[in-house]
Amino acid sequence: MIFIYDEILKSIKLSDNQRNNLLEFSNNLMKIILDYAKSRDIDVECKLVGSLAKKTSLINKADIDIFMSFPLSYDEELLKEYGLMLGEYCIEKAGGIAEKRYASHPYMTGIINDEEIDFVPCYRIKDSSQLKSAVDRTILHTDYVTSHLTDKEADEVLLLKKFMSSVNTYGANYKVSGFSGYLCELLILEYHSFKNVIEAASTKWHDKFIIDLEDYGTSHKFNTSLIAIDPVDKNRNVAAALSTQKFFEFITAARNFIENPSKEYFNNPQVNIEKDELKEEFIKRNTTTVVLSFDVPSLPTDVIYPQVNKTMTSIINYSNHYHFNIIDGKYYIDSENTAHILLEYEIGQLPNIEVHKGPLIQDSKNSMKFKQKYPHAYVDNKRWASINQRMYTNVYDMIRNILKEENINQIKLGKDVKEEILNKFSLVDICDYVDCMQNEEYEEIYEYLNPNYRIYRKD
Amino acid sequence: MIFIYDEILKSIKLSDNQRNNLLEFSNNLMKIILDYAKSRDIDVECKLVGSLAKKTSLINKADIDIFMSFPLSYDEELLKEYGLMLGEYCIEKAGGIAEKRYASHPYMTGIINDEEIDFVPCYRIKDSSQLKSAVDRTILHTDYVTSHLTDKEADEVLLLKKFMSSVNTYGANYKVSGFSGYLCELLILEYHSFKNVIEAASTKWHDKFIIDLEDYGTSHKFNTSLIAIDPVDKNRNVAAALSTQKFFEFITAARNFIENPSKEYFNNPQVNIEKDELKEEFIKRNTTTVVLSFDVPSLPTDVIYPQVNKTMTSIINYSNHYHFNIIDGKYYIDSENTAHILLEYEIGQLPNIEVHKGPLIQDSKNSMKFKQKYPHAYVDNKRWASINQRMYTNVYDMIRNILKEENINQIKLGKDVKEEILNKFSLVDICDYVDCMQNEEYEEIYEYLNPNYRIYRKD
Repeated sequence: MIFIYDEILKSIKLSDNQRNNLLEFSNNLMKIILDYAKSRDIDVECKLVGSLAKKTSLINKADIDIFMSFPLSYDEELLKEYGLMLGEYCIEKAGGIAEKRYASHPYMTGIINDEEIDFVPCYRIKDSSQLKSAVDRTILHTDYVTSHLTDKEADEVLLLKKFMSSVNTYGANYKVSGFSGYLCELLILEYHSFKNVIEAASTKWHDKFIIDLEDYGTSHKFNTSLIAIDPVDKNRNVAAALSTQKFFEFITAARNFIENPSKEYFNNPQVNIEKDELKEEFIKRNTTTVVLSFDVPSLPTDVIYPQVNKTMTSIINYSNHYHFNIIDGKYYIDSENTAHILLEYEIGQLPNIEVHKGPLIQDSKNSMKFKQKYPHAYVDNKRWASINQRMYTNVYDMIRNILKEENINQIKLGKDVKEEILNKFSLVDICDYVDCMQNEEYEEIYEYLNPNYRIYRKD
Repeated sequence: MIFIYDEILKSIKLSDNQRNNLLEFSNNLMKIILDYAKSRDIDVECKLVGSLAKKTSLINKADIDIFMSFPLSYDEELLKEYGLMLGEYCIEKAGGIAEKRYASHPYMTGIINDEEIDFVPCYRIKDSSQLKSAVDRTILHTDYVTSHLTDKEADEVLLLKKFMSSVNTYGANYKVSGFSGYLCELLILEYHSFKNVIEAASTKWHDKFIIDLEDYGTSHKFNTSLIAIDPVDKNRNVAAALSTQKFFEFITAARNFIENPSKEYFNNPQVNIEKDELKEEFIKRNTTTVVLSFDVPSLPTDVIYPQVNKTMTSIINYSNHYHFNIIDGKYYIDSENTAHILLEYEIGQLPNIEVHKGPLIQDSKNSMKFKQKYPHAYVDNKRWASINQRMYTNVYDMIRNILKEENINQIKLGKDVKEEILNKFSLVDICDYVDCMQNEEYEEIYEYLNPNYRIYRKD
């Protein structure tokens, strides 16, 4: 296996030359900032952080993150002002184009020589007790990893990240809800090699599994499937954004890989399928699958994806309430900012009546109320029951009705999604949807029908 | 109200003349037996028992039950032999036709002057500790009631029996599973009047309600909805055969009667409905209702009804297992000894696939087994799940398949029912069934659609 890992490493790791160039480039940028700050008498230190600093960046994802740290005596307004100003100055001086962005607090992004560089202002802190914002922690993370991770282990991080990426469990953003880069580094610090992580995951990991490198013993504070205590902050769970689904998908992928250690697990799988085959699959299932589509505003993934997810969950809950059983659902946003929610129902058409169970007969007060409400209520052993007309007998009618302006507040959608849906939506059968869909969506539909295709590979 | 009760009583109570004639007739029969026994030196005493002896027989149901009691020294064979012989002798001497029958033990029945008379051999016992068979208790019951019930109270029993009969909660046989005549008498002994029983039932009765006239305190031994300790046997629950359904139907009828004390509650309701109206009702419900029909042997109600009930329950359980949800069902046996099981399903056709939930992912041993069984199993949060082909997608296919000879032992039917079903059955849609059914069945179908029609009456 080692030769395979070496081969894979070669294709995903920066060469010494590439790395040195990037470091030199970063150093030049930092020098620009420091020189200018000195001339203005601003107390700032610059530091390359993130995966490039930690030697854990995949070849195509070697983003440069420069953190500018200011003394704790500067107030937040001043820090922001100096930070953005210095970033902008540097980007323009280096011939790039600056753009202000917001994460937990504002930072400056520039494209210089085709590289995307982030300039982030933060406080100069010694440990997590001095934390003023989430970004302050990044420097502590970089310091911890660079001081603990060997070069050999950094390579193992690369293998792990690549594997995770291929099986679609990598990325702490809301869309994936997988393992963050820092979490991958901690896993290698715990287990020392990719192979050991895979083995531990496939045999030892279980729900509420704990990784606590510094033995803080604070895991009882957290309740996620994986609990990874931040070595630089005992009150933080690095795996907080990892979903249970992705945790167990990784375990399953690890088991599959051990069974068949193919290098396919380090490549993204290719989907080759025709529209007719996808349609045929749904027809063979003989279920009722609908797709709800609506435009969404161009907002960051972590803002808009939760809203679409909430919309899907609300419609599923509403459907369950009216006894339309869901087999499964999924959602995605395409490149034209249209969100699609696919819902597969066991049955799309229910009978006109339903049995409604009532109170105990011996409870005369509630019996009276029930009989007033349902005059045809009858005795069903100890309880009342009533045959009532169903509110909805058809799944399309149900969804269209709840999305009407006068009803839509009965379910919880995100604010932006609600506006867009009230403006316009479409609701079509999956076959009609497949007929009209774009190429990029094939994989989404294929993945729905083949939930294993990323975590299980043949040679 | 009293005048209504008086009017009703007039129509349901034997006149003094009628009663005296029946008593005289019974006495003559008993004399025939005693004379003959004396000539044969047989030690026997004769006693008129049952409702006629207790003055609680409804006018059209004044059956004559003559119990012939023998000393405990006679063994069972001798008791049976003498009993049947004396009964037969008496019937033939009186010009009737004798027929041997079996309940818990054999007795002789004869039709004499259009009256049906039972001659039952039993032991002469003083209290329940000497009981040798269930019939021995009858004399104790008759003695208890005649010595405790006033003539006024006997009239109240008649009203209660008539009311119960009209609302279809009277009769301890398996078909009704309602209140026995003796239980009605105990209720009047407890509450003294029909009106008091109705009031108690509608306001005070609840699940596990206890009636214990002799304060034996043995109710903890029983677990039925109504527990009525037999005054002559503290270890017997007189309400054992009363179903929860009929107990609460009576409570409901009592409440309805109090709300609207109409004399309609003392008459059997008439059903006037056309086939087309019945069909229309089912079509409006838009459910899938099937009727399974098969012949049954001519066996006593209490033998064959439980078998048909068991068959229905088995098919319902089997249906639930395959996710065909039942709204409700009923069964009956028509006058030509054909049993009909009506089953109303929410949905008659299900999709081709179903979701099968599996073990926890972290349970690697069971994960392996599950994946071997279902190679396409996928991760659903903490658990495995698999999309499988359904065994049955259609309710007719399901029922026809399970009733095949090679499968029928998977469900529990009565022995006699199983043979008949293997020989021949029909399974049709309710509308086809209604088209072909006999007049007597209208009420059965009407009752299914209108479960309240006997317990709720308009003026």
